[in-house]
Amino acid sequence: MSAGLLLGRFQPLHDGHIFVLRQILKECGRAIVVIGSAQASHDADNPFSAGERVEMLRASLTKSELLRTTIIPIEDINRYPLWVAHLESRCPKFDRVYSRNPLTISLFKGANYKVIEHDLYERGNCSGTEIRKRMAQGNPWKDCVPAGARKVIEAIHGEERVRALAGRK
Amino acid sequence: MSAGLLLGRFQPLHDGHIFVLRQILKECGRAIVVIGSAQASHDADNPFSAGERVEMLRASLTKSELLRTTIIPIEDINRYPLWVAHLESRCPKFDRVYSRNPLTISLFKGANYKVIEHDLYERGNCSGTEIRKRMAQGNPWKDCVPAGARKVIEAIHGEERVRALAGRK
Amino acid sequence: MSAGLLLGRFQPLHDGHIFVLRQILKECGRAIVVIGSAQASHDADNPFSAGERVEMLRASLTKSELLRTTIIPIEDINRYPLWVAHLESRCPKFDRVYSRNPLTISLFKGANYKVIEHDLYERGNCSGTEIRKRMAQGNPWKDCVPAGARKVIEAIHGEERVRALAGRK
Amino acid sequence: MSAGLLLGRFQPLHDGHIFVLRQILKECGRAIVVIGSAQASHDADNPFSAGERVEMLRASLTKSELLRTTIIPIEDINRYPLWVAHLESRCPKFDRVYSRNPLTISLFKGANYKVIEHDLYERGNCSGTEIRKRMAQGNPWKDCVPAGARKVIEAIHGEERVRALAGRK
Amino acid sequence: MSAGLLLGRFQPLHDGHIFVLRQILKECGRAIVVIGSAQASHDADNPFSAGERVEMLRASLTKSELLRTTIIPIEDINRYPLWVAHLESRCPKFDRVYSRNPLTISLFKGANYKVIEHDLYERGNCSGTEIRKRMAQGNPWKDCVPAGARKVIEAIHGEERVRALAGRK
Amino acid sequence: MSAGLLLGRFQPLHDGHIFVLRQILKECGRAIVVIGSAQASHDADNPFSAGERVEMLRASLTKSELLRTTIIPIEDINRYPLWVAHLESRCPKFDRVYSRNPLTISLFKGANYKVIEHDLYERGNCSGTEIRKRMAQGNPWKDCVPAGARKVIEAIHGEERVRALAGRK
Repeated sequence: MSAGLLLGRFQPLHDGHIFVLRQILKECGRAIVVIGSAQASHDADNPFSAGERVEMLRASLTKSELLRTTIIPIEDINRYPLWVAHLESRCPKFDRVYSRNPLTISLFKGANYKVIEHDLYERGNCSGTEIRKRMAQGNPWKDCVPAGARKVIEAIHGEERVRALAGRK
Repeated sequence: MSAGLLLGRFQPLHDGHIFVLRQILKECGRAIVVIGSAQASHDADNPFSAGERVEMLRASLTKSELLRTTIIPIEDINRYPLWVAHLESRCPKFDRVYSRNPLTISLFKGANYKVIEHDLYERGNCSGTEIRKRMAQGNPWKDCVPAGARKVIEAIHGEERVRALAGRK
Repeated sequence: MSAGLLLGRFQPLHDGHIFVLRQILKECGRAIVVIGSAQASHDADNPFSAGERVEMLRASLTKSELLRTTIIPIEDINRYPLWVAHLESRCPKFDRVYSRNPLTISLFKGANYKVIEHDLYERGNCSGTEIRKRMAQGNPWKDCVPAGARKVIEAIHGEERVRALAGRK
Repeated sequence: MSAGLLLGRFQPLHDGHIFVLRQILKECGRAIVVIGSAQASHDADNPFSAGERVEMLRASLTKSELLRTTIIPIEDINRYPLWVAHLESRCPKFDRVYSRNPLTISLFKGANYKVIEHDLYERGNCSGTEIRKRMAQGNPWKDCVPAGARKVIEAIHGEERVRALAGRK
Repeated sequence: MSAGLLLGRFQPLHDGHIFVLRQILKECGRAIVVIGSAQASHDADNPFSAGERVEMLRASLTKSELLRTTIIPIEDINRYPLWVAHLESRCPKFDRVYSRNPLTISLFKGANYKVIEHDLYERGNCSGTEIRKRMAQGNPWKDCVPAGARKVIEAIHGEERVRALAGRK
Repeated sequence: MSAGLLLGRFQPLHDGHIFVLRQILKECGRAIVVIGSAQASHDADNPFSAGERVEMLRASLTKSELLRTTIIPIEDINRYPLWVAHLESRCPKFDRVYSRNPLTISLFKGANYKVIEHDLYERGNCSGTEIRKRMAQGNPWKDCVPAGARKVIEAIHGEERVRALAGRK
């Protein structure tokens, strides 16, 4: 059974992430989702804690998707040549990596993984940077974020937090 | 909905852990299982990686248990007064802590959590230390470990690894 | 007896800091002054060492103020959710926090401290950033800095150091 | 004006420390007291936090002693050749070091400090190790500890804490 | 026999470095070459690993130069007042430091080293920043880099790596 | 051209190390010697600094051996699954690893290196532990250590240092 890896910071989770995760679950027996920069939270680029980001994911998947998905928060190591070994030591075994990031692609290819440049999510303008900017400026952002994650963000007053943190930059 | 926290290193997962987890799932809406010392592996006291320990847990729960359980690997911080805040920043919200460890109990009580001294698992002699010792000496250990975790340990040649690491102490 | 906390980097100490400290000593039995980023020195934003900053404070207080003030240098931890616990583990007990920084206010309120948004020091343009800029450009800065701290800065050739470090940016 | 350095962990402060501090204040214009291992607390060898140790010192000195003494908590760096530079970067200037520890003596002599092997405090059996052992076993310890520090230890239920932590070893 | 220290990141090695190293070998019995930021690699400002930078140096020296040169890769410590002690603890004894960097000069003078402001290499526009920029933009860079280092860079496809990393900034 | 890796702490260098290094230089075009625990020095198990250990090696090789040997001091990373990647990022390319340590053998085999269990050096009782013990107790140790390394140890008063550090354990 093949296992596909998805890497992200999920600040916050958005529809583009879910789109790739569903591609993985179609093509692999299971998905491993790594929540990167787990140590970061409450700063302008990383407003949400690892626990909150785990919740966004769990709340946005169906039961059967959740049962086939393993969520692993991992803190940064900040040394690229050690990144693959760092992930391997924290994750269940995986054999495919889904990414469009050139450095990620080159590091995992160098370690003999099958790397899949996943399809692009075309609808809307989905990126963490864009969503945080909209939140900070009071512009609409909810059309980019799955309903489950939206509820988590509302419950923790996430929009207010992003706005407060943006003021500190 | 209340959420109960279970802390352990799970080196390896054993029936005593499952016994407490089932108590939590009976008494709370959900369980948060923290896999401590996530950074450690391949030494005599911590033979299994965080990823392997996540697998042992996932393989030992029923589907409905798994859907109500959130597994969070967390690296050590090695400063007791920061331990509660470290866990809070990495976990989904929880309101109860299940533990029999006096320091854990005192730290979480100090932070106003409801702490439950869980029942003792009476059958057998279930502890990570005991199981690693038996593995290292070639004595029987499988009666202490749930079937799912046993399969994970076999697939990674865990017994051989523990034996090899024990020789280095 | 209540104890009021004042947080700062004190790069360098200026009249605005002393103004708040005196408000604390009027309203509380004692003051705890935390010198943050204690590990930093000899860079453009942090020209002065923790030891030098302790001296600036000691040299600028009267004897009776000094006897009611506890100075605690603390290195950064760089993880906001752990910041309150980090400070608690290094400081004598305190029950009030004096701050105008929104993140500090929100973190300490979240931990059930009484937070006081202290008055503003109106005279002059007192900020560490402004003073370092003036020092670097050879402009007058001494009207912002208490006489005791000025003497410390002179004794260590602080103005020359700031000028040299500014050139490296 | 010469300044004498005293290094210790002060787990807890005892009469031997005060004895040396008074020798320093007799021979030097001022004393710098470094509270080492500031990051440690709540373990069997380091039961008291840096903040609590600062309080023990402050509570045990007379006003005039306190005005001539600067207390600096410093976390460990764990690399001996950097220890002197680490201390220099955190402390006000000092020119004499009071110690009987051969490594401390050799490191500071190597850095051209005047090192004074202070007199021995003869009365009783004063050492942190001995006091923690007595606390853990419920034996009398108060004759070794200055009255001010005793009150701090009582206010934080220090004896109970040491006993609880000793059980965990 | 005097020993001269040369500090650099060597990202990559260029003719200016060799020019200074030859001045050192003319004036001292031996040279110590410290490869700084040894932990960094595969980012836009630090494309080459410590091992690769060691190779560039070894490949660019004559046998007799190599026998008189000791190459020491050292990771950053990020605290200026500890920098000299950090270097001393990792290097063979040295008594002269060759540098034109004001902070380096001031730190080593403060530690009583003889500091020599080495001559400037006049030919071309030799700096790591400039060479990385040319590599990233596909402009000619080889006239700045000794033949031995060029071969190392070619063997590891260094130009392609710099171009890929530059795209990520 | 093949390159053979030799790993050690070299506390201190002894004849057994030289014996293996000469085997490597017979069987490979070049040798990479990694000086491990580079950050450690001045403690009982690690009395010598990285710089001093580099000197011991340089002083004990012939010119032609030295020209074919690359010495790389590396600090510990303390996470076994990252050890191979850590070494690869700091060393020139190597393809063979010479070791008799089971964990080292298993880690490098797992990363597809050719691992050679080198011959045993039979003469005498050569180990760092044994030599440090002899030094500490004033027993003869020089027959285990190459003449070049002996001279380095004498020049830094190494025997006295080991004796002083042993007393602190």
